[in-house]
Amino acid sequence: MRTLLDVVKEIDNISFPYHNSADHDQYVDELWRFYLPEDPRPYGYIPKFVVEAMPWSADFHIDDKSVPKKVQLLTNSPADANKAIAHLLQTAREKRLFKCLEGWRNEEYRILGAKSVIKIERAGAGLLGITTTGVHMTVYTRSSTREILLWAPKRSMTTKNNPGKLDTSVAGGVPAGVKPFECLVKEAAEEASLPQELTTASAKSVGCVMEFNVKDGGNGLLEPSLKYVYDMEVDDVELRPGDSEVEEFCLMTPSEVKKNILEGNYKPMCVMVLVDFFVRHGILTIENEEDYAELVARTHRNLPFPTSSK
Amino acid sequence: MRTLLDVVKEIDNISFPYHNSADHDQYVDELWRFYLPEDPRPYGYIPKFVVEAMPWSADFHIDDKSVPKKVQLLTNSPADANKAIAHLLQTAREKRLFKCLEGWRNEEYRILGAKSVIKIERAGAGLLGITTTGVHMTVYTRSSTREILLWAPKRSMTTKNNPGKLDTSVAGGVPAGVKPFECLVKEAAEEASLPQELTTASAKSVGCVMEFNVKDGGNGLLEPSLKYVYDMEVDDVELRPGDSEVEEFCLMTPSEVKKNILEGNYKPMCVMVLVDFFVRHGILTIENEEDYAELVARTHRNLPFPTSSK
Repeated sequence: MRTLLDVVKEIDNISFPYHNSADHDQYVDELWRFYLPEDPRPYGYIPKFVVEAMPWSADFHIDDKSVPKKVQLLTNSPADANKAIAHLLQTAREKRLFKCLEGWRNEEYRILGAKSVIKIERAGAGLLGITTTGVHMTVYTRSSTREILLWAPKRSMTTKNNPGKLDTSVAGGVPAGVKPFECLVKEAAEEASLPQELTTASAKSVGCVMEFNVKDGGNGLLEPSLKYVYDMEVDDVELRPGDSEVEEFCLMTPSEVKKNILEGNYKPMCVMVLVDFFVRHGILTIENEEDYAELVARTHRNLPFPTSSK
Repeated sequence: MRTLLDVVKEIDNISFPYHNSADHDQYVDELWRFYLPEDPRPYGYIPKFVVEAMPWSADFHIDDKSVPKKVQLLTNSPADANKAIAHLLQTAREKRLFKCLEGWRNEEYRILGAKSVIKIERAGAGLLGITTTGVHMTVYTRSSTREILLWAPKRSMTTKNNPGKLDTSVAGGVPAGVKPFECLVKEAAEEASLPQELTTASAKSVGCVMEFNVKDGGNGLLEPSLKYVYDMEVDDVELRPGDSEVEEFCLMTPSEVKKNILEGNYKPMCVMVLVDFFVRHGILTIENEEDYAELVARTHRNLPFPTSSK
């Protein structure tokens, strides 16, 4: 039978360091590292096919002599670094080199942990293997018997990404220049029609989850992600779609949510957030879940990239 | 200024895989692995000085040809494995080979993740680098302004281990044959005079924390640990010492707790549990703690040893 850990491993599908160490090391050793100027910490892993296809300008030093191989940004100021990255991705987009750039958003992530503000177009983050940052909130209420019921939006069948899938109650990427909590309040209003005052007063910061996904079943772009996680318990509030991406909001018991996760009815990027919710609320325990400790470790795995500027 | 991450790194003081990878690899490669019969997963790391001093019987194959080096238990049944481990540690104790065995408890841990029930005397777990399992519960109440206040026992100045230090509200090792939640209920009654019915009804399973401590500032025994974590909110309940190890229980604000952690007034093994509590309760957030994501990852690091029998 499929387990939660099976689903988690399909999403967090770069192997854990320590486990299957040899496989892990060989695969990771062959990836190229992406470095920002004057910072010894790698900010992303890039597969060979991207390095070969990318229209690198002279601002990038392609170093195939180092072990592991690396792409080093050489600019002298944050402004120039931002220009070089933007120009690189715009050129690749114009030349139609990568499918992911068809989803160009004109919205940027701030590169997490960089010592100055360096931004990257959201649609291009995966090309350099940059860690994406998001906010995810589970909105829940309680039944007459005090059982937890979770609100989940069901995405429209006509929406482009993940049609028909269930989603976290409220979720979104954190754009450069916006604080995570501000972003959450805005997304809650836009996506679930939740009043800003309610979210501001009631949403609780409860942690973060990390996952490291490699697209195309392990052969594609590397997409590490960090999601700030929030809970909000509500009473007489009904969540309603705020845009056409969502068809309706459903209210589900934890067992229904778990069943839907195992059947693949959730957007993959929600699974870590829901597993973490189940652990924090005592729905999964060491007494009822054999993989308890590994689920907890995997949902909070350390990423090999900076998460702070120190 | 000392930060929570500094304190966490003193406790979880084997380096993170990925970070400072070369140092990590060299140190870890030189440690010996401990293997149980017919199981390819290592159950512990053993430093060279222990391998050399230990009075291994013929039940243990000391393999210095493998890379890394390993100690392989060779017995043919769980009963024999238990006998071999018990005999090994008893012999070492009688010969007074290791200081840690002076704390012999006549209480055993079950080796986590082993396919059958294999036990090890608590005082000897560190000699084979076996992961210890514990339960930790934070009992808290709310002030008239709804601020969280945490209950903390202050250990007696005359107790042997950690005299005068603050501790988690309730904590203990999980002995072989006892379920974590049962263990928690018993410890809460014994250590904090909390009625069994109250703990059974109100304690909430909220996760687990993992840490990997190397004793003597990184040169000694390896002590990975897994702690099941519980919260209990109480109202009109006063915690009282149940034995002479504890002098009194104090009620502290989160800022007082944090100050005491930074000043080294807590038992080291509580720090991960308290940091996790602060994260889950929105006391530490990405907006007020620069090391937020690394604190979350480190308190839930994956250990390189089995946590389930799969």
